Amino acid sequence: MRRAADVTLALAPMPAGAPRQRWLFEEIRSAIAAGRLAPGARLPTSRDLARTLGLSRATVVAVFDQLAAEGYVVGRVGRGSFVSDQLPEHWPQGAVAPSPAAVPRSGAPALSARGAALCAMPAPTRGRSWPAPAFRPHHPDLDAFPFDLWNRIAGRRSRLAHRHLLAEGDALGLPALRDAIADHLRLTRGLSCSGAQVAVVGSIQQAIDLLARLLLDPGDAAWMEDPGYPGARLALAAAGARVVGVPVDEGGLDVAAGRALAPGARLAYVTAGRHTPLGMPLALERRLALLAWADEADAILIEDDYDSEFRFEGAPLAAMKSLDAADRVVYAGTFSKMLFPALRLAFVVLPDRLVDPFAGALALTARFLPTASQAVLHAFIAEGHFGRHLRRMRLHYAERAEALTRAVGHHLAGMLSLPPIAMGLDAPAFLPAGSDGADIARRAGAAGLETRPLSYYAVDHPVRPGLMLGFAAVPPAAIAAGVERLARVIEAARGGGGSGVYTTQNNYLSVDMPA
Amino acid sequence: MRRAADVTLALAPMPAGAPRQRWLFEEIRSAIAAGRLAPGARLPTSRDLARTLGLSRATVVAVFDQLAAEGYVVGRVGRGSFVSDQLPEHWPQGAVAPSPAAVPRSGAPALSARGAALCAMPAPTRGRSWPAPAFRPHHPDLDAFPFDLWNRIAGRRSRLAHRHLLAEGDALGLPALRDAIADHLRLTRGLSCSGAQVAVVGSIQQAIDLLARLLLDPGDAAWMEDPGYPGARLALAAAGARVVGVPVDEGGLDVAAGRALAPGARLAYVTAGRHTPLGMPLALERRLALLAWADEADAILIEDDYDSEFRFEGAPLAAMKSLDAADRVVYAGTFSKMLFPALRLAFVVLPDRLVDPFAGALALTARFLPTASQAVLHAFIAEGHFGRHLRRMRLHYAERAEALTRAVGHHLAGMLSLPPIAMGLDAPAFLPAGSDGADIARRAGAAGLETRPLSYYAVDHPVRPGLMLGFAAVPPAAIAAGVERLARVIEAARGGGGSGVYTTQNNYLSVDMPA
Repeated sequence: MRRAADVTLALAPMPAGAPRQRWLFEEIRSAIAAGRLAPGARLPTSRDLARTLGLSRATVVAVFDQLAAEGYVVGRVGRGSFVSDQLPEHWPQGAVAPSPAAVPRSGAPALSARGAALCAMPAPTRGRSWPAPAFRPHHPDLDAFPFDLWNRIAGRRSRLAHRHLLAEGDALGLPALRDAIADHLRLTRGLSCSGAQVAVVGSIQQAIDLLARLLLDPGDAAWMEDPGYPGARLALAAAGARVVGVPVDEGGLDVAAGRALAPGARLAYVTAGRHTPLGMPLALERRLALLAWADEADAILIEDDYDSEFRFEGAPLAAMKSLDAADRVVYAGTFSKMLFPALRLAFVVLPDRLVDPFAGALALTARFLPTASQAVLHAFIAEGHFGRHLRRMRLHYAERAEALTRAVGHHLAGMLSLPPIAMGLDAPAFLPAGSDGADIARRAGAAGLETRPLSYYAVDHPVRPGLMLGFAAVPPAAIAAGVERLARVIEAARGGGGSGVYTTQNNYLSVDMPA
Repeated sequence: MRRAADVTLALAPMPAGAPRQRWLFEEIRSAIAAGRLAPGARLPTSRDLARTLGLSRATVVAVFDQLAAEGYVVGRVGRGSFVSDQLPEHWPQGAVAPSPAAVPRSGAPALSARGAALCAMPAPTRGRSWPAPAFRPHHPDLDAFPFDLWNRIAGRRSRLAHRHLLAEGDALGLPALRDAIADHLRLTRGLSCSGAQVAVVGSIQQAIDLLARLLLDPGDAAWMEDPGYPGARLALAAAGARVVGVPVDEGGLDVAAGRALAPGARLAYVTAGRHTPLGMPLALERRLALLAWADEADAILIEDDYDSEFRFEGAPLAAMKSLDAADRVVYAGTFSKMLFPALRLAFVVLPDRLVDPFAGALALTARFLPTASQAVLHAFIAEGHFGRHLRRMRLHYAERAEALTRAVGHHLAGMLSLPPIAMGLDAPAFLPAGSDGADIARRAGAAGLETRPLSYYAVDHPVRPGLMLGFAAVPPAAIAAGVERLARVIEAARGGGGSGVYTTQNNYLSVDMPA
């Protein structure tokens, strides 16, 4: 009975308002863990303990049951409750509720070799602020998004929603949304597809990650535009692909060069609608040559069409997939650019033979995507808001592209060459040969400007020095102010020297200094 | 000029209400693709075509520009527009808008070897109906979810929301939600953790997929409870792991057996709180032995705690991670079971050294999770609704467990042994030795009942014949009716023969027929 008294004495005061049962459980458990109650020690009876502590006996019994269930305490019929003998001698000190600082740490993370590649993404893992500074690339204007309308649709949907929308959904997405996406693509991108070929994903990045694993074994070659989108390159590399940088010229991906470098590649990633980062569309003969290669090589083409909707004059270009007679193209688009990033909805149009495998891979790695946001997006598309929003954004972004062009012409003539901007959310601008684009991007960052050097997009070959300038997320006044600031940054970087003058040509790669 | 007339004549009628520009573009493009307009053929002037078709000249010029931009047409100064010579001779027939049925198909999908494993998930890729039939396992009661309250919070959040919540979020999740999850786990699961160690994911499945790749190279061994959760087993196998089925007994995973089978495994997956499918918690001495092994082997333990919140008597058991002095446990939980599946939010508590790698891997493969649902969930937790809901569900599910126990005792005594149900959403029930559980599950399915044979959970060793019976999603009356129907199914399967009688013991594995 001494031990019973010990237990009582060692208990910390019960915090006001704390659940009594939880408090008692934790106190006894801590006493056992810290060795204050040794293995084999007899606990007081529940009746005694209840009386001593002023608790109901039911509470104490419940605590004993819990301690027994977790193995701390054993009951012996007719004899009472004892601290378990099964506790090992080397009960770790501080094992209960270790504070992170007190815990011994191994030095290096025990990552696998491929794990190191998997977490090598240079893209920020931190979120982005809003408003965006000039010249955040690859970003839509969130202020222009019809948020109130979206919320009204979400509220209406909630009121009408049925319980079954809380249950597990299809791996490939909400059927009505898949159909609506197919309808949209038929109208605007020249695709002949049905909802059955559409898979809803959280991001194009997720689709690339799944496709790389579905289609490539480690060591298999994959073509990557060079320069090209690093997210795709790293996802392919993380999947163990041998990433082959295929040069691009003014017509886009050089298919002949790809055939020479890696004729048996299993996959090619291509931004056919508007090349990332250089901005030109993939020429028609290149599209056909690429499709012919894919058919010969039994390869799959991933057409990442993330911002081709924003073409400032004329209708959007038809997608490469509209020419895909042999069903070899995975067409990918994202609502992150068309609407807003935090929605986390994107889609792929799959070759028929990849639909079931993709569904299986999605089910294994994600099960399915959130239903509520898919339902709101479906209503937003079906009621015509989506098409209206895209049309409105085309004009809106065209104005901003024009503002950028005007400001660069005014303040940066001779320092930065900006080819005409036909579409998209951002544009490449070229620095004189020999400039250090990464250095200028860093200096711009220090001056509060957000931009990326074109070298960020390099794969195997160097890229002409330049900067990626986003305009879509930046109001015209901020574009003008940003360009002025950028001019000072570039002048400072040049140290006042240099006097090369650009002619701005409608040519994405061969803009050279004339003298 | 004859060709011009031909073009005009070949045009399909303009559908009423169709955008004229799009129609004209598609008509000419189709004519080129189908060979009705040959390479080099001269097109009519825009003026003539506009007059012939009754369109504005601006519309026709825009179409010509678009055709030129896509490479179908070239302009020669002073001579007019011509179909491009660059079109290859073997323009694929039907290349424009191929209908899926008309497209030649390769026979076998060009999947990689690991791609075949990646899409081998036996879990359904189709969504689930609601209401759920008896005895859908692993599923919460959606009718009991406070949907109106949730929607009110969502509506309020929408009205208060700022634009920055539309922008890119942190890869690891909304900071306020991560903190709220850590607070909840400190209170209810005995974990000492901070929001900095919490990562929000879409599902535990996604976390397993990422961890398997971060921690395992192909061929590395991973311990899997045998029997155990197939989703984990397949995700590990798809990552190229050598999955080692470690037997379980009444104390859960047999750590000594695991040491004998694969002492150098890099990872172990364990349902410590309530074993899937057999239902017992991992005994305390096993927890400590498992932690000691992990420290010796430099391995990581994934503790999948997906339904331990629903313990019907006493407080929830503390998590294994609460004993994790060496910071080797990844603790995983999911709101799919605690709230509803279509929310698609789950979480892991990571060892400090894995936080940054996990964030990088998430950024590469998913970027980040949807912000709106995270914000609503945060408010739901912070305002106390979450804790209240869990408490309410514990009573609710306890009633249903009791209904199942009562009905089985009444209608299935001697045919099916159901151990006492202490927690969870479902329970294993054992058939007499020699029974074919898979056959009975199939017959039950034909009778409108949803259940899984325990053999579904087998890894390397056979499992005692039995069925997994979900009770949480099924109202008591439907449970009673389902048990009656199941009794008829089992009797029919036995063909009237057999007379084994069970004693129901509080023992998960050694329930045998007494005679």
